[in-house]
Amino acid sequence: MTLLHDCLVDLPSCDADARAAVTARAAEILRPSGALAWLDETAAWIGGWHGTDRPVIERPAGVIFAADHGVAQADVSAYPSDVTASMLQAYSKGQATINAFARAAGADLVAVDVGVGHPTGDIRTESAMSPERFDSVVQIAIDTIDALDCDLLVLGEMGIGNTTVAAAIAASLAGGETASWVGRGTGVDDAGLARKREAVQQAQRRIVGITDPIEILREVGGAELAALAAATMTARHRSIPVVLDGYITAASVLPLVMVEPSAIDHCIVGHCSAEPGHRKLLERLGKRPLLDLDMRLGEGSGAMAAVPLIRMACAGITEVPTFGEFFA
Amino acid sequence: MTLLHDCLVDLPSCDADARAAVTARAAEILRPSGALAWLDETAAWIGGWHGTDRPVIERPAGVIFAADHGVAQADVSAYPSDVTASMLQAYSKGQATINAFARAAGADLVAVDVGVGHPTGDIRTESAMSPERFDSVVQIAIDTIDALDCDLLVLGEMGIGNTTVAAAIAASLAGGETASWVGRGTGVDDAGLARKREAVQQAQRRIVGITDPIEILREVGGAELAALAAATMTARHRSIPVVLDGYITAASVLPLVMVEPSAIDHCIVGHCSAEPGHRKLLERLGKRPLLDLDMRLGEGSGAMAAVPLIRMACAGITEVPTFGEFFA
Repeated sequence: MTLLHDCLVDLPSCDADARAAVTARAAEILRPSGALAWLDETAAWIGGWHGTDRPVIERPAGVIFAADHGVAQADVSAYPSDVTASMLQAYSKGQATINAFARAAGADLVAVDVGVGHPTGDIRTESAMSPERFDSVVQIAIDTIDALDCDLLVLGEMGIGNTTVAAAIAASLAGGETASWVGRGTGVDDAGLARKREAVQQAQRRIVGITDPIEILREVGGAELAALAAATMTARHRSIPVVLDGYITAASVLPLVMVEPSAIDHCIVGHCSAEPGHRKLLERLGKRPLLDLDMRLGEGSGAMAAVPLIRMACAGITEVPTFGEFFA
Repeated sequence: MTLLHDCLVDLPSCDADARAAVTARAAEILRPSGALAWLDETAAWIGGWHGTDRPVIERPAGVIFAADHGVAQADVSAYPSDVTASMLQAYSKGQATINAFARAAGADLVAVDVGVGHPTGDIRTESAMSPERFDSVVQIAIDTIDALDCDLLVLGEMGIGNTTVAAAIAASLAGGETASWVGRGTGVDDAGLARKREAVQQAQRRIVGITDPIEILREVGGAELAALAAATMTARHRSIPVVLDGYITAASVLPLVMVEPSAIDHCIVGHCSAEPGHRKLLERLGKRPLLDLDMRLGEGSGAMAAVPLIRMACAGITEVPTFGEFFA
């Protein structure tokens, strides 16, 4: 059993009374009942996790986990591995796209190195992470989230090669045609796409017989994906609602729900990306994305783009009177 | 010829050079080329109308036009007409949903009375507006927009009965089955829906032979729809990009594009509403909505909800270095 397995027990539930109170208030608010549809449901969901009938988003925070991947040597990406280190630098300087998005959303942003320059094993031929490394990455993520003061957590990632390991997790756990899980990521060409597919198939063949979803994450995943999974569960233990980003974040939580179906009840999906496997994975996870804009950047950008909507959803409950209050 | 006809000539074009410069910059920015997809296109579109290769949204403003409708006496809405006046009061007190959304989006908001308590003619049996009233409403809208200092204009409306007149415009100008343009609005029941359909058909029969789209807007539209059309064109003359809201705003600009196909090139659509005719109308207008959240509130809420995305799109161009700048 790994440290991540331990994160999957004794999960707090949302405050069903608070959630129901928001839903009841939504029906009475100064607008046609149901007019905000899903936004009202989102506010109720926030209220449930915050334990209040007056939900607000005041301190959103984004966390990006970054790491390198041994499988990148199989030439599965349009970019060389050292781009990961450059982007980590850009995040810390506040210069990347996600920094601009976070500023616009009024969110803090932290980028966490869980293996940049220290690639995981090449999943074609070896475990991505030893049990020790896996636990150590999980511990970093736990500590990162435990140190945050936030009321909404946006999760993102950066790691050249990580759509390949995401596809390996999805193909191994959700089944179906391997090719249906393998997309172009940052824009790999046809030959690269074929190499990527072959790499995922090799990884799948290597782990035949392993059935524990967490072990599959350790075997064919990546350090930032393990960190995302651990961050998601740490947020759960603190009842912090989470906004997931694209394909990689979705793949990183799939092992969690296969162990514990309610594991990501505190998560919403910010957007559906252009990576074809993402939509399929969201169906598997039973999640509807707030945005659908063909984005395919990662870094938490699609999740951060949804933060203002979630804030508006809460404001639509908390800042607007009911008919009764208005006409009193 | 009405004053609105005059608004449709000598339209400025967008600055194609600025727009192309944003597109060129987007391709070089510190992220995979094309990764922001439509958001980059949106930023380029803003750049074109602002005449800059570094677009920003600093002063968004929302304008809600409100009016009453003679056809409301046909019992076509789930709410009585006096709700329009109450909502106008809520807007001015900053208490409505759109006020909360505008605060979250950092936008100013103005609500403009173009006929609350002074209903238009019942479109089943008479013209909605005389030529004089039509011109007078158009003039109010022109003056309203001319007085604004904004770099992005969000247009919305309020008026019990206005999905009925929107349907009358759409059915008259876009053709097809009348029923396909008539939805439940704020939530009318089956009997109300049947009355609504019948009211639209009566209006259509009354204006057979009238072909000028602007005249059709005057005959079967409403005061806030005329104001929306005029506001849209006033923004165009000032090269202010516009975010349209739901079904009613879409119906109000349809006559414009039927006179001048390029009339709403400076408009983007914030969201697709739950009103079934809206999606159809957006296809006719050739516009893809940024959001698709089943909202059906009006008040400009779906357009305002998209403002943070548009701001992020611009920040993704203006606040993020190119690869060359980053590695310099």
